[in-house]
Amino acid sequence: MVIPADMAELAERPPETPAPEGACHDAPTRLMVVRYDEKHYEELSVESVEQCLSLRDAPPVVWIDVDALRDAEAVAKLGEAYGLHPLVLEDILTTTQRPKLEDLGGSLFVVIKMLSYDRETHEIHHEQMSLVIGPTYVLSFQEVKGDAFAPIRERLKRAGARIRRMGADYLAYALIDLIVDGYFDVLEQVGERIEDLEDALVTNSTSETLHAIHHLKRQMIFFRRAAWPLREVIGALGRGESRMIHQETRVYLRDLLDHTFQIMDSVDTFRDMLSGMLDMYLSSLSNRMNEIMKVLTIIATLFIPLTFVTGLYGMNFRYMPELEWRYGYLFVWGIILLVFLAMLAYFRRKRWL
Amino acid sequence: MVIPADMAELAERPPETPAPEGACHDAPTRLMVVRYDEKHYEELSVESVEQCLSLRDAPPVVWIDVDALRDAEAVAKLGEAYGLHPLVLEDILTTTQRPKLEDLGGSLFVVIKMLSYDRETHEIHHEQMSLVIGPTYVLSFQEVKGDAFAPIRERLKRAGARIRRMGADYLAYALIDLIVDGYFDVLEQVGERIEDLEDALVTNSTSETLHAIHHLKRQMIFFRRAAWPLREVIGALGRGESRMIHQETRVYLRDLLDHTFQIMDSVDTFRDMLSGMLDMYLSSLSNRMNEIMKVLTIIATLFIPLTFVTGLYGMNFRYMPELEWRYGYLFVWGIILLVFLAMLAYFRRKRWL
Amino acid sequence: MVIPADMAELAERPPETPAPEGACHDAPTRLMVVRYDEKHYEELSVESVEQCLSLRDAPPVVWIDVDALRDAEAVAKLGEAYGLHPLVLEDILTTTQRPKLEDLGGSLFVVIKMLSYDRETHEIHHEQMSLVIGPTYVLSFQEVKGDAFAPIRERLKRAGARIRRMGADYLAYALIDLIVDGYFDVLEQVGERIEDLEDALVTNSTSETLHAIHHLKRQMIFFRRAAWPLREVIGALGRGESRMIHQETRVYLRDLLDHTFQIMDSVDTFRDMLSGMLDMYLSSLSNRMNEIMKVLTIIATLFIPLTFVTGLYGMNFRYMPELEWRYGYLFVWGIILLVFLAMLAYFRRKRWL
Amino acid sequence: MVIPADMAELAERPPETPAPEGACHDAPTRLMVVRYDEKHYEELSVESVEQCLSLRDAPPVVWIDVDALRDAEAVAKLGEAYGLHPLVLEDILTTTQRPKLEDLGGSLFVVIKMLSYDRETHEIHHEQMSLVIGPTYVLSFQEVKGDAFAPIRERLKRAGARIRRMGADYLAYALIDLIVDGYFDVLEQVGERIEDLEDALVTNSTSETLHAIHHLKRQMIFFRRAAWPLREVIGALGRGESRMIHQETRVYLRDLLDHTFQIMDSVDTFRDMLSGMLDMYLSSLSNRMNEIMKVLTIIATLFIPLTFVTGLYGMNFRYMPELEWRYGYLFVWGIILLVFLAMLAYFRRKRWL
Amino acid sequence: MVIPADMAELAERPPETPAPEGACHDAPTRLMVVRYDEKHYEELSVESVEQCLSLRDAPPVVWIDVDALRDAEAVAKLGEAYGLHPLVLEDILTTTQRPKLEDLGGSLFVVIKMLSYDRETHEIHHEQMSLVIGPTYVLSFQEVKGDAFAPIRERLKRAGARIRRMGADYLAYALIDLIVDGYFDVLEQVGERIEDLEDALVTNSTSETLHAIHHLKRQMIFFRRAAWPLREVIGALGRGESRMIHQETRVYLRDLLDHTFQIMDSVDTFRDMLSGMLDMYLSSLSNRMNEIMKVLTIIATLFIPLTFVTGLYGMNFRYMPELEWRYGYLFVWGIILLVFLAMLAYFRRKRWL
Repeated sequence: MVIPADMAELAERPPETPAPEGACHDAPTRLMVVRYDEKHYEELSVESVEQCLSLRDAPPVVWIDVDALRDAEAVAKLGEAYGLHPLVLEDILTTTQRPKLEDLGGSLFVVIKMLSYDRETHEIHHEQMSLVIGPTYVLSFQEVKGDAFAPIRERLKRAGARIRRMGADYLAYALIDLIVDGYFDVLEQVGERIEDLEDALVTNSTSETLHAIHHLKRQMIFFRRAAWPLREVIGALGRGESRMIHQETRVYLRDLLDHTFQIMDSVDTFRDMLSGMLDMYLSSLSNRMNEIMKVLTIIATLFIPLTFVTGLYGMNFRYMPELEWRYGYLFVWGIILLVFLAMLAYFRRKRWL
Repeated sequence: MVIPADMAELAERPPETPAPEGACHDAPTRLMVVRYDEKHYEELSVESVEQCLSLRDAPPVVWIDVDALRDAEAVAKLGEAYGLHPLVLEDILTTTQRPKLEDLGGSLFVVIKMLSYDRETHEIHHEQMSLVIGPTYVLSFQEVKGDAFAPIRERLKRAGARIRRMGADYLAYALIDLIVDGYFDVLEQVGERIEDLEDALVTNSTSETLHAIHHLKRQMIFFRRAAWPLREVIGALGRGESRMIHQETRVYLRDLLDHTFQIMDSVDTFRDMLSGMLDMYLSSLSNRMNEIMKVLTIIATLFIPLTFVTGLYGMNFRYMPELEWRYGYLFVWGIILLVFLAMLAYFRRKRWL
Repeated sequence: MVIPADMAELAERPPETPAPEGACHDAPTRLMVVRYDEKHYEELSVESVEQCLSLRDAPPVVWIDVDALRDAEAVAKLGEAYGLHPLVLEDILTTTQRPKLEDLGGSLFVVIKMLSYDRETHEIHHEQMSLVIGPTYVLSFQEVKGDAFAPIRERLKRAGARIRRMGADYLAYALIDLIVDGYFDVLEQVGERIEDLEDALVTNSTSETLHAIHHLKRQMIFFRRAAWPLREVIGALGRGESRMIHQETRVYLRDLLDHTFQIMDSVDTFRDMLSGMLDMYLSSLSNRMNEIMKVLTIIATLFIPLTFVTGLYGMNFRYMPELEWRYGYLFVWGIILLVFLAMLAYFRRKRWL
Repeated sequence: MVIPADMAELAERPPETPAPEGACHDAPTRLMVVRYDEKHYEELSVESVEQCLSLRDAPPVVWIDVDALRDAEAVAKLGEAYGLHPLVLEDILTTTQRPKLEDLGGSLFVVIKMLSYDRETHEIHHEQMSLVIGPTYVLSFQEVKGDAFAPIRERLKRAGARIRRMGADYLAYALIDLIVDGYFDVLEQVGERIEDLEDALVTNSTSETLHAIHHLKRQMIFFRRAAWPLREVIGALGRGESRMIHQETRVYLRDLLDHTFQIMDSVDTFRDMLSGMLDMYLSSLSNRMNEIMKVLTIIATLFIPLTFVTGLYGMNFRYMPELEWRYGYLFVWGIILLVFLAMLAYFRRKRWL
Repeated sequence: MVIPADMAELAERPPETPAPEGACHDAPTRLMVVRYDEKHYEELSVESVEQCLSLRDAPPVVWIDVDALRDAEAVAKLGEAYGLHPLVLEDILTTTQRPKLEDLGGSLFVVIKMLSYDRETHEIHHEQMSLVIGPTYVLSFQEVKGDAFAPIRERLKRAGARIRRMGADYLAYALIDLIVDGYFDVLEQVGERIEDLEDALVTNSTSETLHAIHHLKRQMIFFRRAAWPLREVIGALGRGESRMIHQETRVYLRDLLDHTFQIMDSVDTFRDMLSGMLDMYLSSLSNRMNEIMKVLTIIATLFIPLTFVTGLYGMNFRYMPELEWRYGYLFVWGIILLVFLAMLAYFRRKRWL
């Protein structure tokens, strides 16, 4: 028994390899075994890895889905049964992996991020999905509890569906396709959020609008970080570097690759749009400042000279001839009106009014 | 009959694959069959796909043009008759594709965007054009109703025209060339719009000018997104990686490739120009703010000290010797003029006047 | 006669292929035929293409220079005589081409831009030069009237000059070299202009300085656009991919390639410098704004509290004890001086004075 | 004896090759020899190089760890004994090297930086680690005194550990892995610091926040400079270009390569975040300025016209009818309230209140 | 005699090929011939090229150093004797070359820039160094008078030095190494300058600090321009594409290549640091502006309403009840204090005080 020793050694390994959060067994790890071929379909929810392994031999395609990585031991046992290298098990359990594809010799190992958009906080959550694709089996490991792959089981249940006629590689494609479709959902909601923010920018932009734009920009950084390596992963699968992927499935993978290009296009467009919005926010700030300063300047420039004039005739000198004039007061009003009109003309020429 | 099942399965597929908008049959999908060789030319507007297919055999070149993708079923039938993969049909019907070229084995599949500039809203609209290029046929699918390919039919009608002497590949070239020429039209109008905005920037820039620049910049993001993949598509066609494209046609495609380089050059130049305009707008804002502040500062700095002086002699102290002076008032005017002239000199030295 | 039909078809082609501007025959297209070998030199200015073609056979090297593209028909005839493809003729006549090199099989086709700097408007003008390089001939087409290639004819006249001993490829090199040398002239003048603007920036920058910097920056965008593809064109010529270029000439072309690298280096340096100048202009604006605001703040902060004090004792209350004091007025002056000095100390501590 | 002469020649070499700082022998260079195979483990702290060399022959793997590069002579002797080129010795002693991998023929030479985060100054310190990896030995040179490799010795002491079963290449991997793990620690602390600064940015950002962001940004420049070349180094080791690295170890190195990709991802994300924070700081400054100016403008615009009114009736003209009015004072209060309310309405319409 | 004719033709060549500045023979070009092998060393300062050439045959390695390119004729004669192409001679004499390596067949031609930092003007000066490396000789051409290569002669004089045992290629390496070491000196001084400017930025940044940062940034543009092509030059030498470079010397050249990578790293780091400093300068400007505006706003907001109050009771209405009150004056002081304290509370809540 070599592998347990290796697993023990995992403990020796660096701190960036934690047991997944919430590993406290508050909800048991669910193991779901799906077995099917063109004629039959069987779906079993099992308790232990041993039970699960006893089911794996008969049919053409077996799919073992591990929902929520709470039970590191179960993952280790499953890995052992399928001959996975300890480093691969470590990658499955470490949920901060970068999306990647590894050829393990007899099987393929895919790490990919499932994304979802939280409409409350406007944050993009991600969950790590790991797939091991063998000739007749697919192992899938979900980071967080939640029946994300239900739509695929629905498709599998339908007799005559293409997915029933094809092999484990097409099943893996369908799982990845489901995840990538989620990216489009997220992008759509980001697009809506951008439109909302644009409206806010035009009507009444506050500093909260600014924070929201910055926040969304940062979310796009994370999105991009999850989506960028997808191109390599799916590209490599589609190029058929591994004989695990049949010719028939490759055309679907290439179509999926087109989707990832579209995703990256959208991400870049959104980033450009958000940058443009930030620029616009800043120039609207400057614009408003100009507006404010104009008001201040007009008022001050109108009244400060006039106040000087009134101050002048408020002086208490004994000998000020104007004060004694019959029409001195009217004369001052004349000056005031003159200054006023001259200033107005000046502002109009400057196009400030 | 395998393919209908596959078509049914399209329904299983992700939501980003909608039926094209306006698929409500309010205007029937028009099918136009054009058949020609060097001697003959025939143009038939048919109702049903079956009728259309019955016409396809005889002449050297057949061009089936589907105007407006309203009838997904008709597209499916046509695809079936020409042996197109369900994924290709899906790509034709999904009008958010990225421009691309796919070698389908016996034929080539090209997705390309037709662009047009709306002079009212200053927006660039795009329409997806899909072409299937076979040895003796071209299928063209237009997203939106509108006789975009009429000029090509005009050229085909003229006996002795080069396009009549050459094959389906040259017809496809002519269609793509027509679309790419539309890019130049759009660029020309964008160029005019930029000139208008530049004039506005110099004469009287408002915050609307800013919005217009931002809006145009965003339009260029979308334009670039449509134009960028063209280089690969046309480059690959021109390199003659497929034997579908004859040697004779390749020289025209390489010429077209030069056009796409010119387009990308123009797009990049326009982007640089728009960025420069934004910078200029911002610095003109700062300039104007300086201007406003200068006026305020000059007025305030001139009159605030003088108002202090008048305030001084407006005090009601019993014992203020100056008030009793014979020439006290003249003395104050002297001070006022002195301060005034000193300030003017100061501003002149600072080059504010 | 196939080609005339093709030429006719040029009319079918897209609008971005206009006849060159000023094609109104106000000055006739000049055709200059130069024939030389090591011993002989002959220079003939002819009227018609026919006359020109009758001269083309005898000597080792023939150079036909078409000055100003006003006579599309003459170009077409010449092209026909030398077996040029209609697309090449179109490229010659369309003066918005991107610089490029094309191998036509029996000859090479080079499009290149001649640049010149207008000292009045500070704009860079460009003229399209097209060269067709055959084994024993060079055809050159100048867009605009003007004897740009006179220096080459001068060198050719000198007996024993290297250019006389070498073939058509060296003549083509000499023509391109002459054009590229013009780039250095332009760069030199741009460099001088940058120095002028830098001086203006330091001494008295106005908004005109800003416009001039932006204008020059835009000129550099156009310059770069013309110069960038040169590297590929001259690089490909120098690598000797065509057997038209002899080993002996290649070393000169590689030297020319070094020149284009120097040009691109200079362009990038100028762009960086202009960007730095814009940054400096903007920060000098902010600096000046700070300066202005400081003056305003100092004056306002000094006098507004003092004006309050004078206002206080300008009130007309019946019972204000200070007004009756013997030294009330002196007391107020004391307050005024105190406030004044305190403010001055404060400003000095803030380093505003 | 050739090498001493070469070493002497090191003195001829440029000034950027200093003896490591603190070479003043205040603490002796510690030499630690570790010898192990699957069964045995031995750890000896020796004084002289000679003693050290006498121990090197017997067991399958020997690890000589030189802690602190204070004794250049000892390094030279060790290098001589292992046949290292003088330039390699120079690289070991020059602690400003860039991370790199060199194939020395019979051994591999790796330079790598160990990073640590100083919680006090928020600076990232780096220490140069040089490794020489031979078929059965590893030489490690630490720049600074400190038992950085203790965890590896702990793992080696445990019987049955994988590290005991594998060769010198795995030992080298373990050492590099330990160093790279330190990068994650640093990144974690940088991440915490970024969060602190973000909080500061939202609650009360001062110019110190700005300095801290700039400081952290600069630290990331240095981090990136240390981490960037790691990808090549570890990538080259993992590709197994040298037969020194066994197939079994390569899978671990490829895993380590994934870690470096994650590190670069994080660095880029942090840089983007810091840039975003700077932008936000600047726009919050502008926002606050607008806020300040608004207050000033509201107050000035409210009271300056009113002060003019009071100044008007503070004039001492003999004939001012209003002054004699019975309700003149009330009338003025009416004007004041009117102006006041009108201004408030104006500000409310402008959304300034 | 073919070459003189060619040299004559240099006159025909473009204006960017000037004779080096200061070609006025005010100090004669110094020719220094160094001849050495492992046993012998000879150093001769000669007057004429003829004398120089007579010395070139005997020993294994001859180094001819031309100090200051004042005598174009001497360079031409030397070039002729060593069979250099006229274009190479032109490159040597044109001191605006880009660093480059050319394989001349029997020899290598290297152009490289020697950099030095002027502590007075803080400018980076550069001098062009051209080397011709033959199997047994090195020709070096210095642009400016000054004994830059003296340290190499010192090393050559020492018997037993490695440089004496190795060939012309190692001598060339030593010369280039000397020049590249100068880059580190310059970088060190730039680093010090950056530290000085950073201190100035924190303590008292003036607009001169801004100018100095911009100036240094521009110097780095020029530095980068000189250093960037070095990587190709030294990389190509180190890859041993020419058999002129022996295996033994290549390891030194690869070490030198590492140095150039370090240089580029430093340049990029410095550029990033300078950009960060500019950002910081600008945000400190905004900060200071906020500071200034705050002072103005506080003072104006405190006193303008109070001045209004005093103005109110300075009016001369006949019927103003408050004026007659016994404690009217105290009442006003009450209002004043109230307003004052309310404003202070407001400012404190806004964190302006």
